[in-house]
Amino acid sequence: MAQDLDRALLQEARSLFKKLPHDFADSERPLAPERVVLGKMLFFDPRWSVDQNVSCSSCHNPALYGSDALTKSIGVRGRRHARNAPSALNIAGDFAANWRGDRKDVEDQAITAAIGALSTGHTDHVAWIAQIKSIGGYLAMFRRAFPDEDDPITPTNLSLAIGAYERTLATPGPFDAYLDGNILALTSQARLGLRTFVDVGCAACHNGAGVGGAIFQKFGAQMDYWLATGSKDIDKGRFDVTKDDADLYVFKVPGLRNVAMTPPYFHDGSVATLPDAVRVMARVQLGRTLADEDVDGIVAFLKSLTGELPKDFSTMPTLPAGGAR
Amino acid sequence: MAQDLDRALLQEARSLFKKLPHDFADSERPLAPERVVLGKMLFFDPRWSVDQNVSCSSCHNPALYGSDALTKSIGVRGRRHARNAPSALNIAGDFAANWRGDRKDVEDQAITAAIGALSTGHTDHVAWIAQIKSIGGYLAMFRRAFPDEDDPITPTNLSLAIGAYERTLATPGPFDAYLDGNILALTSQARLGLRTFVDVGCAACHNGAGVGGAIFQKFGAQMDYWLATGSKDIDKGRFDVTKDDADLYVFKVPGLRNVAMTPPYFHDGSVATLPDAVRVMARVQLGRTLADEDVDGIVAFLKSLTGELPKDFSTMPTLPAGGAR
Repeated sequence: MAQDLDRALLQEARSLFKKLPHDFADSERPLAPERVVLGKMLFFDPRWSVDQNVSCSSCHNPALYGSDALTKSIGVRGRRHARNAPSALNIAGDFAANWRGDRKDVEDQAITAAIGALSTGHTDHVAWIAQIKSIGGYLAMFRRAFPDEDDPITPTNLSLAIGAYERTLATPGPFDAYLDGNILALTSQARLGLRTFVDVGCAACHNGAGVGGAIFQKFGAQMDYWLATGSKDIDKGRFDVTKDDADLYVFKVPGLRNVAMTPPYFHDGSVATLPDAVRVMARVQLGRTLADEDVDGIVAFLKSLTGELPKDFSTMPTLPAGGAR
Repeated sequence: MAQDLDRALLQEARSLFKKLPHDFADSERPLAPERVVLGKMLFFDPRWSVDQNVSCSSCHNPALYGSDALTKSIGVRGRRHARNAPSALNIAGDFAANWRGDRKDVEDQAITAAIGALSTGHTDHVAWIAQIKSIGGYLAMFRRAFPDEDDPITPTNLSLAIGAYERTLATPGPFDAYLDGNILALTSQARLGLRTFVDVGCAACHNGAGVGGAIFQKFGAQMDYWLATGSKDIDKGRFDVTKDDADLYVFKVPGLRNVAMTPPYFHDGSVATLPDAVRVMARVQLGRTLADEDVDGIVAFLKSLTGELPKDFSTMPTLPAGGAR
């Protein structure tokens, strides 16, 4: 790409995208280190699920970039989730949680998952609280994280701790260096791919710091998605949450950070490879059939969204021993 | 303890125990770094089990010191194992693998688990080989680890790679510093506990570098173990492997490295806390009822066997993306 075109592309990219923040703290929820430490423990600890064998990290596995590589996740007691697990990385930056946006934020997701039939398997908060209390060490950590409370092992505090931890999981990568002005942080193929990504219309929905994660959109703007993906079960998306016809087949536009590391794709994990996912999106959302070189370019650009894992995600905590039966 | 008694104890300890080696390489199986890297990937990758959801690390969890904190492990599709999962740490130093010693070493354990009904769920090696081959990146890693072979993704090579990785998982701790001559690496309570540990007879079986892991022994030398542990199912141990009456209720004497971090205890996980485990062992194996202060001392000594996790165990690999369905 010629220098002036490269400069123009960078300028346009800066108007559409943003660098990832260092973390996803908000003013109401400062990231107290004691909460992050506790939240990390709870995230990786399988002992508070009903069979003491499933943790947040079971489906949000650091070795698989915070995902599980399954079409649809397997929760407690082998129960199959209805949708593909989004990565836990950068997800705290999304405007809502889950494919259908039926959870407000990561805290809302955590408190709901704590009693999710498919996730922990608990039917109320009493059981997991008892399990956590039976493990020596947790009470002291909850007290440090919530110093003003007499009895701090509560659903709200669990969600605040796990949320605080997840709000630290940002993965800046080459694309952020590019937005910072280092044009060569992206290969020329990736820059051409970015050009295509913007020109064909992907960036209409996939924009901002998350390269998505900011709006809902109908999956199937130009044709029914299941015809292009080969999905066998048809998911009505947000309609099942709101019962509003306008929400039929509507899902959260997923952020594309680390997308190259988290196949398979879409809410149902129906597409196995990134080039195929790009092709499907072009057909289904934009009504276009992309040339192979355009697909390759977009894939090269998407690979520039792969960041480094936060050390606090790739390094396991040492959980307090004891208490499990 | 007076200085001369402390010196005598150290001398005696040196005759009974050994410092952990840096690793568990043997002359036949040098720890080629390419094999260790590959073995680590395979150890943490759930995608080659039959439901693509169980890895070695599911039961040998770094956050739980290489164990799973369950009485009996939960394998693929929720299947319950017959016995408690030993930690993967230092286990390569044992004279045989598994509670009943029915596997020769970590390589033998890995190749058997690869087609274990309860572990990966595969019934033959064909299926997991296909799953590994479907993940781009593994073939190149196998080629680097086994450069002289045309088609290196084989059961033997899988076991050599996972074995090589496990042979790096040594966790020296304060007790090794003590054996090195730093008497104050153990608290005075721990040194008194070591004195008791030797005097009452624990070290007759729990000795060497692993503080166990070197012989078989009947569990229930002085009384039936299930009377003391409250076990509900009676496990005949090695008898079921050999059908030799002399092996009735015989198990491998487990190494006690990191024992404080890996409750619950015994082959059936029937005892939840370390003090209770010490009491049971004294009654069942030695026919003694220990005073509380002796139990506390032994527990303090056992805590000195907690080492630091190897960085290669507490830090997750980044698995090659793709291929999972």
